Amino acid sequence: MTEEREIAELQRLVREFSTERDWQQFHDPKSVILALVGEVGELAELFQWVPSDEAVARFADPARHGRVAEEMADILVYLVCLADVLGVDLGAAARTKLADSHRRFAADEVRGVAPEKA
Amino acid sequence: MTEEREIAELQRLVREFSTERDWQQFHDPKSVILALVGEVGELAELFQWVPSDEAVARFADPARHGRVAEEMADILVYLVCLADVLGVDLGAAARTKLADSHRRFAADEVRGVAPEKA
Amino acid sequence: MTEEREIAELQRLVREFSTERDWQQFHDPKSVILALVGEVGELAELFQWVPSDEAVARFADPARHGRVAEEMADILVYLVCLADVLGVDLGAAARTKLADSHRRFAADEVRGVAPEKA
Amino acid sequence: MTEEREIAELQRLVREFSTERDWQQFHDPKSVILALVGEVGELAELFQWVPSDEAVARFADPARHGRVAEEMADILVYLVCLADVLGVDLGAAARTKLADSHRRFAADEVRGVAPEKA
Repeated sequence: MTEEREIAELQRLVREFSTERDWQQFHDPKSVILALVGEVGELAELFQWVPSDEAVARFADPARHGRVAEEMADILVYLVCLADVLGVDLGAAARTKLADSHRRFAADEVRGVAPEKA
Repeated sequence: MTEEREIAELQRLVREFSTERDWQQFHDPKSVILALVGEVGELAELFQWVPSDEAVARFADPARHGRVAEEMADILVYLVCLADVLGVDLGAAARTKLADSHRRFAADEVRGVAPEKA
Repeated sequence: MTEEREIAELQRLVREFSTERDWQQFHDPKSVILALVGEVGELAELFQWVPSDEAVARFADPARHGRVAEEMADILVYLVCLADVLGVDLGAAARTKLADSHRRFAADEVRGVAPEKA
Repeated sequence: MTEEREIAELQRLVREFSTERDWQQFHDPKSVILALVGEVGELAELFQWVPSDEAVARFADPARHGRVAEEMADILVYLVCLADVLGVDLGAAARTKLADSHRRFAADEVRGVAPEKA
């Protein structure tokens, strides 16, 4: 028996939560993406007026740390919900993407240089 | 010895990728959130003009499935990068959030009813 | 004397509002974009679970109509704030963009076909 | 005869553009919001790795200035498109919102202090 991995487990928990509430009917991809956008917006609002170089220290404060963890959790939950709806293996996709990035951005060529969108 | 869990492993891979390229200097929270917003935008663009009730079938096509998996992977990578920068335990936060949601939305009370933002 | 156009007038009102509160110090571009993202998130949340084909009717209801108008106003205010910070002539840019789109999407070639992001 | 104001004029141009291409069928609110999210993502990507205090100067460069103006124009176009679909008077909503903000944030009480999202 293979052990369930962490992201697959989250996906199962999210699916069970939705099924128990008969909420899967609302979870077409566009709706879930809008929900994800809502959570990303809440995350952005936490940081909007914080000076860039103070942001890490500001969110070391326990109340703010809990708040940002919660918003990030919401984003992950909707991302995992979308993966479930679309049949995407999110963990595998992330590992593939990182392997691609290793090839695409050779460390010796891009060291210390942020890629710029053309 | 405890085994490394999947999200912690991704977090380590993302950190190693950034460190090798000396890119951690760019990864203040506000910058990583803007990168996350960029990837969410790319995900949204894939679905924008697809009729809601055709979205799942449309993205069963292998090329589109690969494309959406890639955009979702990008979102997860930046979310995990942000977790690393802020010291957030993302997997634990998601499990806590789901447990809270179980309490907050009693299945018998909300069955089949989508919550509306006031 | 040329009359002030509507978007320039909004831009002036936003600038005066910020100046009176000494808030211009917070309005570097990345911060304003995060604020814009926050407002787009609030707009998305209003629509997330509404069936696509009921969305227009649902928001004809006066309370919901007022709410969505407010979120859209917030987005415009931050967009105009960003235009002020960056010295962008937003109205002119929109007219130029529409003229470009007329050339790029010849009506006879794209009629009834939604462009797909590759 | 009242003169057409700038935002109403943009709205009319956007509507004519869509009608000529028979694209209004795609412009249900959720789809237009996803398109708006896509454009906000493109704007965010332009700024993501730029140091906060260099962002204004970096985008004074003519090519980058043109690029950011274009992304901002795209956002405005979709916002105006949504206003048209929902029957929202966007200019009036923005002026109302600014008047509300004047009342809500008394200059003497908030001077120099960024409001924090709880």
